[in-house]
Amino acid sequence: MTEKAWGIAVYALLQNNEGKCLFLRRSPDSKTNPGKWEPPGGKLDPGERLDEALKREVFEEAGLQISVRRLLGAIEYEVPAVKVACLIMEGNLVTEDVKLSSEHDSYRWVQPSEMHQLDLATQFRRFFAESQGNVMPE
Amino acid sequence: MTEKAWGIAVYALLQNNEGKCLFLRRSPDSKTNPGKWEPPGGKLDPGERLDEALKREVFEEAGLQISVRRLLGAIEYEVPAVKVACLIMEGNLVTEDVKLSSEHDSYRWVQPSEMHQLDLATQFRRFFAESQGNVMPE
Repeated sequence: MTEKAWGIAVYALLQNNEGKCLFLRRSPDSKTNPGKWEPPGGKLDPGERLDEALKREVFEEAGLQISVRRLLGAIEYEVPAVKVACLIMEGNLVTEDVKLSSEHDSYRWVQPSEMHQLDLATQFRRFFAESQGNVMPE
Repeated sequence: MTEKAWGIAVYALLQNNEGKCLFLRRSPDSKTNPGKWEPPGGKLDPGERLDEALKREVFEEAGLQISVRRLLGAIEYEVPAVKVACLIMEGNLVTEDVKLSSEHDSYRWVQPSEMHQLDLATQFRRFFAESQGNVMPE
C-alpha cells in the first residue's frame, strides 16, 4: 500500500475589538464543504513560509492584513490526494474591513462561546466544539 | 518592531512492540538544550514535504525507517532567529535498530506513563507533562 503524502495547511483565528472571531461561509458551488463555515486559511504553497502563507490566504479570502501571533493548536484531515496537518494560529488584525473572494459568500464575527453553533466544515468541528469557546487560553 | 518569521518543525513519537516510545539525549556540546531528552525530529528544509522531513530526521538521528501515521499535536517555541510551529506525529517503525548520530549521545525506550520523568528539552515539557502518559488516544 502506498502511503499518502502529507501537506500542511494553516488557518487564522482573528478576533476583533469586541472579542468576536471571523468565520467565512464556503460558496454553494465549492467542491468541498459547500455552505459550511471555516476561518480564513488554506494550504501552504510549495516552499512557502508558514507566516507568509497565512497572511496570503487571509488577504486573498478576507482582504485583511494581519500579523501572526501564536499557535493555538493543530488538526488532521484527509483530502483525496493528501493527508493534511493543519495549524490553527491566532492572528492580530492590522486592517478591519472584510472583502470576500469568490471562494466564500458570507462572513460573520462570532463570539468564541458561540463558535460551536456554526455549521462548520467537518475538519474544524472537533477543534471548535471541544474548546467550548475556550480556544484562546494564554 | 519587525515580526519574527515562523518556521516549521516535526518530531516523531515512535512506539516499539512493548509500547515504549523512543527518546534521544542531546549531546553535551549541543548549543541548545545539552543533555536534555527529546523525540527524534527537527526543522523542515525549505520546500521539503512534511512526511519526507520527518522520515529524513528520524533516519539521520536514529537510523530508523518509519512510516507516518497521524498527527498527535503541536507546540510552539522560539529560537533566536525564528518562531517555530512544531508538529508531533505518530510514526510506525519499519526498522528497529537505533543508530545515533553525533547530535545525541544516548537513547531510551520509555513507557508513555514515564515520559514526564525524563529531563526533557524545554519545548517538549508541557506537551508530555500535560498528557500524563496519555499522548496517543485515538
